[in-house]
Amino acid sequence: MSEKGNREAPPLDTGGRELTMVNETQHTCSASSSSKSDGGSSSGSESSKDSSRCSTPVLDADRHERLREKMRRRLDSGDRWFSLEFFPPRTANAAVNLISRFDRMAAGGPLFVDVTWHPAGDPASDKETSSMIIANTAVNYCGLETILHMTCCNQTKDDITANLQKAKRLGLKNIMALRGDPVGEEWEEEVDGFNYAVDLVKHIRNEFDDYFDVCVAGYPKGHPEAESYEADLRHLKEKVLAGADFIITQLFFRSETFLKFMKDCQAIGITCPIIPGIFPIQGYHSLRQLVKLSKLEVPQEIKDVIEPIKDNDAAIRNYGVELAVSMCRELLDSGVVHGLHFYTLNREVATTEVLKRLGMWNEDPRRPLPWAVSAHPKRRVEDVRPIFWASRPKSYIYRTQEWDDFPNGRWGNSSSPAFGELKDYYLFYLKSKSPREELLKMWGEELTGEESVFEVFTCYITGEPNKNGHKVTCMPWNDDPLATETNLLKDQLEKVNRRGILTINSQPNINGKPSTDPIVGWGPSGGYVFQKAYLEFFTSSEIVTALLKVLKKYELRVNYHIVNVKGQNITNAPDLQPNAVTWGIFPGREIIQPTVVDPVSFLSWKDEAFALWIEQWAKLYEEESPSRMIIQYIHDNYYLVNLVDNDFPLENCLWQVVDDTFELLNSPTQK
Amino acid sequence: MSEKGNREAPPLDTGGRELTMVNETQHTCSASSSSKSDGGSSSGSESSKDSSRCSTPVLDADRHERLREKMRRRLDSGDRWFSLEFFPPRTANAAVNLISRFDRMAAGGPLFVDVTWHPAGDPASDKETSSMIIANTAVNYCGLETILHMTCCNQTKDDITANLQKAKRLGLKNIMALRGDPVGEEWEEEVDGFNYAVDLVKHIRNEFDDYFDVCVAGYPKGHPEAESYEADLRHLKEKVLAGADFIITQLFFRSETFLKFMKDCQAIGITCPIIPGIFPIQGYHSLRQLVKLSKLEVPQEIKDVIEPIKDNDAAIRNYGVELAVSMCRELLDSGVVHGLHFYTLNREVATTEVLKRLGMWNEDPRRPLPWAVSAHPKRRVEDVRPIFWASRPKSYIYRTQEWDDFPNGRWGNSSSPAFGELKDYYLFYLKSKSPREELLKMWGEELTGEESVFEVFTCYITGEPNKNGHKVTCMPWNDDPLATETNLLKDQLEKVNRRGILTINSQPNINGKPSTDPIVGWGPSGGYVFQKAYLEFFTSSEIVTALLKVLKKYELRVNYHIVNVKGQNITNAPDLQPNAVTWGIFPGREIIQPTVVDPVSFLSWKDEAFALWIEQWAKLYEEESPSRMIIQYIHDNYYLVNLVDNDFPLENCLWQVVDDTFELLNSPTQK
Repeated sequence: MSEKGNREAPPLDTGGRELTMVNETQHTCSASSSSKSDGGSSSGSESSKDSSRCSTPVLDADRHERLREKMRRRLDSGDRWFSLEFFPPRTANAAVNLISRFDRMAAGGPLFVDVTWHPAGDPASDKETSSMIIANTAVNYCGLETILHMTCCNQTKDDITANLQKAKRLGLKNIMALRGDPVGEEWEEEVDGFNYAVDLVKHIRNEFDDYFDVCVAGYPKGHPEAESYEADLRHLKEKVLAGADFIITQLFFRSETFLKFMKDCQAIGITCPIIPGIFPIQGYHSLRQLVKLSKLEVPQEIKDVIEPIKDNDAAIRNYGVELAVSMCRELLDSGVVHGLHFYTLNREVATTEVLKRLGMWNEDPRRPLPWAVSAHPKRRVEDVRPIFWASRPKSYIYRTQEWDDFPNGRWGNSSSPAFGELKDYYLFYLKSKSPREELLKMWGEELTGEESVFEVFTCYITGEPNKNGHKVTCMPWNDDPLATETNLLKDQLEKVNRRGILTINSQPNINGKPSTDPIVGWGPSGGYVFQKAYLEFFTSSEIVTALLKVLKKYELRVNYHIVNVKGQNITNAPDLQPNAVTWGIFPGREIIQPTVVDPVSFLSWKDEAFALWIEQWAKLYEEESPSRMIIQYIHDNYYLVNLVDNDFPLENCLWQVVDDTFELLNSPTQK
Repeated sequence: MSEKGNREAPPLDTGGRELTMVNETQHTCSASSSSKSDGGSSSGSESSKDSSRCSTPVLDADRHERLREKMRRRLDSGDRWFSLEFFPPRTANAAVNLISRFDRMAAGGPLFVDVTWHPAGDPASDKETSSMIIANTAVNYCGLETILHMTCCNQTKDDITANLQKAKRLGLKNIMALRGDPVGEEWEEEVDGFNYAVDLVKHIRNEFDDYFDVCVAGYPKGHPEAESYEADLRHLKEKVLAGADFIITQLFFRSETFLKFMKDCQAIGITCPIIPGIFPIQGYHSLRQLVKLSKLEVPQEIKDVIEPIKDNDAAIRNYGVELAVSMCRELLDSGVVHGLHFYTLNREVATTEVLKRLGMWNEDPRRPLPWAVSAHPKRRVEDVRPIFWASRPKSYIYRTQEWDDFPNGRWGNSSSPAFGELKDYYLFYLKSKSPREELLKMWGEELTGEESVFEVFTCYITGEPNKNGHKVTCMPWNDDPLATETNLLKDQLEKVNRRGILTINSQPNINGKPSTDPIVGWGPSGGYVFQKAYLEFFTSSEIVTALLKVLKKYELRVNYHIVNVKGQNITNAPDLQPNAVTWGIFPGREIIQPTVVDPVSFLSWKDEAFALWIEQWAKLYEEESPSRMIIQYIHDNYYLVNLVDNDFPLENCLWQVVDDTFELLNSPTQK
């Protein structure tokens, strides 16, 4: 029975049994009706996108709900959830690490993350480390539902409006509205200024209508500056009445503190969700600092445990985890708490441990699509991407961020939207996670010829150490170790890389595996996923020449694109159409084809793929050095090749194509 | 190698071997570049459609070319082709028959059909039998590339413009520009009037730029009213210079006549295609009449054969076929003729026979999609339809003809475009082909209860005669005998119809059969086609009640929609999304999913499906008669049910669902 149906009188002749009915007049689809509540403010283009969603695959209701609706749905269904708070890092390197952490912690399935606002750190700027840009990265590049904190005191109305507009432009839809700490000791209210968080809440609602979901802070012990606990509760109610959608509390040390606070809130008529802020103690110094800032008092029984072990970080963390787990259990067992908010201090271990012990860490997250869906409201309907950026999804999102056209949720007309300029690729989150010294160890302090390069590729595939004993755990085109799926092809990949077919992307053919398959599955359960075999590699023009002869035998079966850095392009793609290489069939849905090999975007990818030779590899070496000239030679003379075996139900023929090519090269007549 | 590539210098390092290159800058796709030649005249919306075609499946270049391009491509590739001329019939019944003939002759693969203009028959009107409406039917409902003839003498400029505008609005893109026969004997040129076909050609080019492809008539023996053969050739050249795209000739009796004419045309600089008009002699009287009208002389050797057998129609037709075949062979063997135009006289046998003997009748026409693609320029990009109208495609096209939005060639947002009103369904081409008496014999002169109706359905499925000895060859929902594909399900269908599951649409599940499969195949070769099992039927509320209980066991596997005439609707479709039930995977292309079960359009289909009970069946009987009341009862009380088994790789479970339902109904507790 559809959950969406209006309950109506039972149909005729059903013997009085009640049936859920969908009324005939209910022609609107749920996607468009849910988008309605976005308000008419300024989401015109977005709602028109949403209104055409009925006929396109919607894999996950989450992709179309705003945060408060997701929260409400969890509450209604009794599903427990958690969220994670981070602060902006100080350095670009720390930012790269934090983003990796986002990706890893996203695997646990947080309902959202939030990023704090550091007035001293130029928080609205375009710096890699600003609150705004970190939140932007989380929502757009990591696909995380994100709340951006924002403070208001000592700021002009225009500045605040500009910040909110920027947040909106970047795809942020949730704001945590805070007063912020006054700069001087002697803070005084400004007339008509932003003196309290409630002023910011009102401003958001005045200027942006219902566009943002607004969160406010609650103080289980009362705000330290409030006249009284009761007065603070009244302030909180004002914030909610001004338009806040939910409350996250300051940290606390005893579950009773929160439960009493929640009861008191309800008693004075606060009905929105109130989420407890959990602080797993991770170290003596961080605790002391936080307590100082928040003017909270640590209960004596905790002090008594911590003081004796204050120099033993591991012991304190273990105790902190223990404490957090038991407090969380009490909260959850109370029956009134469904979601937990974690103050992570930008660390992974303690929070992950608490969540795992609570059974709330999502060990088996379903992939809605084979790639991570962006959480940008405009972009969440996207459901087709070219395969080329499979290992560089952030680069793809970055280079297509100006597109505002995903017709019918599809990647759409590849020939019209321009890819972002390659000059931007050095953006910090596209950088390698590894420092130069590390890369040199992996890719060779000194190259002696093209064969040294073949060896690097081979070691990356096999996982064996190189001749200097270093494992090659990343490549310019793959910042992470080999994917599990690619492991299926490991033996063949090793063989061909050794001989100068330098593979950078591949997938096996799949003929209808269950969508729940742990390696290749994605999408809702009960479906079947399919793939065409794909192989992408750099190789010399000599091999390309032989390959082209061999491909004539496979003309109807194998599609190919072969391009060099100058853009000379050889293909048998019919009419330059995209070739679907990953698709899924699901109960009650349209076909979903999330990955294509697209001839037009291949030429944009080509620029990036060739540039990585120079920017990430050649530049590790001195100018004019032999090592650098070897990479430069490959960059200038090799071809980038992709092959698709269209006959997905048969055994992958691409290895045979490569074998035939080497055989041709080795035949006496060829020589 | 892509045929689309510009030939460029060979790439680096290929050892000098020539390779077809696609230049990097060539980012436009062929579909959009071909649409360019449509001219900027007034096809704005159309070209914007075409420009987004790159990323959507284009199965057949034909769907995007205009007639003159198709002709040119056939010429370039040396493929032979034929076309068929028809005239508008006199009565509505004859029109229904002619349209069936269109459908049958379309199977042979004509490049186009043309419909003559009968000035005396109100040719531009909306009458079912007008030239305009017959051409409209051919292009829109039968999916045939169509040329509409148009004459100009004795007509005002405004009338002619209005007629051309109407033709354009209806989706006609090709005009045969003719002078027409002057009404009186004493015809005189009008100053500034339309005196010759060339005036009409100029007018079309002035007023409609390049929108229409324009064809003109050539006279291999010279026009009977021309001063001389040479003067007539000069007139023809004027017509071409004025903008005609190709020439179709008047009939002739000897191949030398045409070949000389063609040579003479070329000698005076006519370079466009010239298509010989072939007239297979089909009877003594039709030949005499045609000769009289065209003022041609029948060669003595033909007269000598025909006169002695003038009363033997079959003998004349055999001779006519023989004569046409040998003349066509001579023309084709000449090497300068690639296409043949047939004057069919609205008859099938002779022309089909000639074409079969020439080997030009397409015995194995590939279906580009499982349903016939409309030839309307706006609509040819359509590539998804709801399954419900599978047996009533003309009704579907009619009811969606006002839609101008097929986003990305998809059927698009089902909730927004309104279906045409059902009041229009009595349009003549939606009528049953059979007369009332015939229908009564098939469906019962007198019904004695619901069981008599079950029997009619069962006889239609089995092909066995009913108890009065009449075969049931059509039903209100299926105007033709059972499809070959449905035959696969015959035994099960018979069983369930006997018990009151009155099936009107079904398809078996298919798990990756070759696209060339003679029964279920469609689309280009080298692909694989898939289907989910589908079953649609009317049934009583008693059975629906049991069915719903049974369906609980199949909740995750089977999607259902159950609706009665009042629109009470029960479904488990997630978020009212469409469910793809037919799809295909092809080399080098995106996935194509031509058929869906769509919850929203199902409610529009429901109106039509229920109305057919009354309009086509109940109304065969007297008002208040028991037979009529039985059908009325079914109409008022039965439900229309559709079921989809999502697990297409497994054995179809829908028969089990039905069996379980009957078992439940028969179980003692149920009773």
